[in-house]
Amino acid sequence: MKLYNTYISSASYRVRIALNLKGLEYEFVSVNPFKGDNLKPEYLAVNPQGVVPTLVDGRRTLTQSLAIIEYLEETRPDPPLLPADPLERARVRALALVPACEMHPINTPRVRKHLANDLGLDQETSIAWGGHWNGLGFGTLEALLNDSPHTGTFCHGDRPTLADLCLVPQLFVARVVQTDVSSYPTLLRIEEACLALPEFRAAMPENQPDSPSS
Amino acid sequence: MKLYNTYISSASYRVRIALNLKGLEYEFVSVNPFKGDNLKPEYLAVNPQGVVPTLVDGRRTLTQSLAIIEYLEETRPDPPLLPADPLERARVRALALVPACEMHPINTPRVRKHLANDLGLDQETSIAWGGHWNGLGFGTLEALLNDSPHTGTFCHGDRPTLADLCLVPQLFVARVVQTDVSSYPTLLRIEEACLALPEFRAAMPENQPDSPSS
Repeated sequence: MKLYNTYISSASYRVRIALNLKGLEYEFVSVNPFKGDNLKPEYLAVNPQGVVPTLVDGRRTLTQSLAIIEYLEETRPDPPLLPADPLERARVRALALVPACEMHPINTPRVRKHLANDLGLDQETSIAWGGHWNGLGFGTLEALLNDSPHTGTFCHGDRPTLADLCLVPQLFVARVVQTDVSSYPTLLRIEEACLALPEFRAAMPENQPDSPSS
Repeated sequence: MKLYNTYISSASYRVRIALNLKGLEYEFVSVNPFKGDNLKPEYLAVNPQGVVPTLVDGRRTLTQSLAIIEYLEETRPDPPLLPADPLERARVRALALVPACEMHPINTPRVRKHLANDLGLDQETSIAWGGHWNGLGFGTLEALLNDSPHTGTFCHGDRPTLADLCLVPQLFVARVVQTDVSSYPTLLRIEEACLALPEFRAAMPENQPDSPSS
């Protein structure tokens, strides 16, 4: 498999964790939007939308991180990233969708660029924007996790699930955009448990071949 | 089943279509954010996040429209809203996630309210904002659909799937926020095919009991 992605992309980060947890080897192909790689003809031939990640599995091309992860779950079910019970699966998916649908999309580089370049918002307003939406989402997640007997070492029980795959990258991004995450003890405890696992650590932005720090 | 929702919510609209296509009866409980219903104690007791929709299935409470629809698919598989083949499922989910993750979250009432009230953007800028993000997403969908032999009467083949459940409400919302959708012939053709089905028509905002037009 080939994963077209870049170190700093949180959607890519989710897929890297999934691949690692399932023990799947993949070739890392760097597509760095900061260098304009995503709009080069060779990448647009792979993914005409010019966004990352894209997973190529044999002759199959897959886009959208959550669709990729569900595909991996269906084709390589062991170890599972979703529980077996439909109601528990719904809980995990709902926890995953808070970052995926309510936080990440409002804080992507292209939204922030639009706010700065087209709407003329300054750096301070941009930080406040990130803090506002990240704060709402993290507050929701903290409450959902604290309210449920299903919360364990991880978001759901004692093994990582899709919910953790979305939480950890969102905490990473939040720090990049200078959101204070100190008031979410449950999220931070779960993040620590995740990052103690080699599969998560190997997926971290700083450990990718195209990271400036690597 | 009880569906806490409101006529104008596109995430609610998705779930209404799913319930109708699966032939599931449900009680419509109106939670109208424009009247502040979503922040009343009786609703916060059901969904502490104060967002819609929430589905109550027996004693089970489910949130997040996509998680609800996947739950319905797993517990009431007939008729299916996803194809059987994992790669085709991934295509349908990816098509669904363009509106769900790249368009809807950036155009929700709470984001628009924040732009207007906290960032002082005027009505014209707000319309341009909707047009910008809806245009990008619809352009992506139009290209993805035109590029694939899997596209049929509907987004995927000749029966409605999760992709159509997300597309049709997004076209509805786009018109509400004054986005011009006339340059997406494939999307409009599929919308017409969907709205020819009674299950879609019964889910339309204007046909809900809390719609001003009903």
